[in-house]
Amino acid sequence: MTDNAQPGRVGYRDIANDLRRQIDAGSLPPGSRIPGENDLMSQYGVEQPTARRALDVLKNEGLIAAKRGSGTFVREFKPIRRVSPDRLQANTSWGSGKPIWNTDVGTRPRTEGVTVEVELPPAAVAEVLRLDDGARVVVRRRRYVVDDKPVQLATSYYPEALVAGSAIAEINTGDGGAYARLKELGHGPTRFREELRARMPRDTERELLGLAQGTPVILIVRTAFTADDQPVEVNEMVLDSAAYVLEYKFTTED
Amino acid sequence: MTDNAQPGRVGYRDIANDLRRQIDAGSLPPGSRIPGENDLMSQYGVEQPTARRALDVLKNEGLIAAKRGSGTFVREFKPIRRVSPDRLQANTSWGSGKPIWNTDVGTRPRTEGVTVEVELPPAAVAEVLRLDDGARVVVRRRRYVVDDKPVQLATSYYPEALVAGSAIAEINTGDGGAYARLKELGHGPTRFREELRARMPRDTERELLGLAQGTPVILIVRTAFTADDQPVEVNEMVLDSAAYVLEYKFTTED
Repeated sequence: MTDNAQPGRVGYRDIANDLRRQIDAGSLPPGSRIPGENDLMSQYGVEQPTARRALDVLKNEGLIAAKRGSGTFVREFKPIRRVSPDRLQANTSWGSGKPIWNTDVGTRPRTEGVTVEVELPPAAVAEVLRLDDGARVVVRRRRYVVDDKPVQLATSYYPEALVAGSAIAEINTGDGGAYARLKELGHGPTRFREELRARMPRDTERELLGLAQGTPVILIVRTAFTADDQPVEVNEMVLDSAAYVLEYKFTTED
Repeated sequence: MTDNAQPGRVGYRDIANDLRRQIDAGSLPPGSRIPGENDLMSQYGVEQPTARRALDVLKNEGLIAAKRGSGTFVREFKPIRRVSPDRLQANTSWGSGKPIWNTDVGTRPRTEGVTVEVELPPAAVAEVLRLDDGARVVVRRRRYVVDDKPVQLATSYYPEALVAGSAIAEINTGDGGAYARLKELGHGPTRFREELRARMPRDTERELLGLAQGTPVILIVRTAFTADDQPVEVNEMVLDSAAYVLEYKFTTED
């Protein structure tokens, strides 16, 4: 309890602020257990609704999370690093810059639950791919998983006219994946645009990604273009924001 | 009310789901007014706490927001587009690709409240800038504002040893800004790394950015390197996620 808090006059915000200060200061480090409702009731002299609401504030801020049956803990941020453009990773001139957030360098999500369908595209995707009315797309859906925890949902759209009959329309796209197949078809992508935003998850996203309360999602829409500027793929990704740091590297010419 | 909902048995989740469906379907379009607590109470036959909780769900999801004294409305997403690398914007070969999210192309945030201090850097910044213990930094803080609404907080750190006595240590950095001054000093940045994550805002961030409930922030840490790989600036940005779409463009060599 802060020194100036008086028993009986403590509000849920005071308790939340107090716990947040301890988390920020490191006296409640990542992974440590937070006092429960009963602890807070006796420690601050408040009723249960006040204690519960204080914990809710910190849950909604994504600072703490309840683990079923074992209490409430300070959340850890040990994300995967997703680097773009990926090929530059090998470029040694980029090797030495220390990153601001530590990440699980070795972690690579694995793909799970791949499905392939032929569908009419959503209007926005049809526009980006410059498809005529009624033109269909091959849709590849899958999720990315780390240690059995889903971290990303991804849906890729390819013009059916471009990829019908290729391995892109099969579950297994073969060595080098969809981009290698597009290249064989004479439509290899060489330029990429990624558009990003962040928002709170919809119910379905929260369930599919197993998101804790107070966890936003990052939406990335990646469009792949050929050298002659033809869009050949739109990939819509939904990322668990607690599982990723995104890194972009670029140069500026004078 | 959904057809299978029975008066007296409707929960706050049913009401939230019902309203969310109407928002998704467009029958409650962006900017339209949402029924208030009293409307929901009579429409669904529920008590006030249930109606309030249903609205809270949608506020926490960032789908609706209360405007003081005038009701609750479906939120609009008309963001600013922030393109990296910026110089490529002029490259006509990138001009034609239709984006997935419509953005206010003409909107440029203006800078406000610039302060300049000489300080000891946070440990993480000192590491990224490869500073010795006790080495100080010039810290430039400012916010970006659109139509009097703050959309971004930014804090840039420069090694004091590098920029002392230059306009980078003044409020007004002069034509071309800090990067032009760094170049004159023989430390012009040519390579950039941006690291991104998203999370719910801290109280201070929520206040300074005037964020509605259910609005995450995007954190970007941009590090600028010279051609010989020396880090010369770290810029920590906190963005209102409802105000921005970030766009990155890059090519992949074979």
